[in-house]
Amino acid sequence: MNVTYLGLLAGAITTAAAIPQVVRTYRTRQARDISIWQPVLLNVGMSMWLIYGLIIGDTPLIAANAFSIVCYSLLIVMKILYKEDDKSKSCA
Amino acid sequence: MNVTYLGLLAGAITTAAAIPQVVRTYRTRQARDISIWQPVLLNVGMSMWLIYGLIIGDTPLIAANAFSIVCYSLLIVMKILYKEDDKSKSCA
Repeated sequence: MNVTYLGLLAGAITTAAAIPQVVRTYRTRQARDISIWQPVLLNVGMSMWLIYGLIIGDTPLIAANAFSIVCYSLLIVMKILYKEDDKSKSCA
Repeated sequence: MNVTYLGLLAGAITTAAAIPQVVRTYRTRQARDISIWQPVLLNVGMSMWLIYGLIIGDTPLIAANAFSIVCYSLLIVMKILYKEDDKSKSCA
């Protein structure tokens, strides 16, 4: 298998990895156990990968990181939104 | 700034992003809101990135993905271990 395909497939899978967490958090409306710093750091790093991809003109890198940034931004928004729910639901 | 340094910095930050979640889950012993599929998919993708890095002989890619695989494997183990705790602690 051409090594480039391996890189593309690896990029696609690591990008898709954000989806189950976004879906779970949206469905359960619970994000208490999630550290906000993971999606925040990922977004910082992936924004740099996005700039890096734009500079070297690497389309898969641009596409993968743009998609991931959207997913992890959603996760950050939900983490903040559901914070109130987490407090009211926590076992008194 | 040399674009390679941008890539190295981006890789370091996205790699470090796993740490806050591992630390939080270890401290709180709670992983109920975490989807196990995120670390599982990330590990599959990053194992492929690791093989890709070995094939093209790219040390930063090898180091970043090896470190991340360790972090996300820890997260998977904790998600499984704390599953029992999650059940006993969930609000009846």
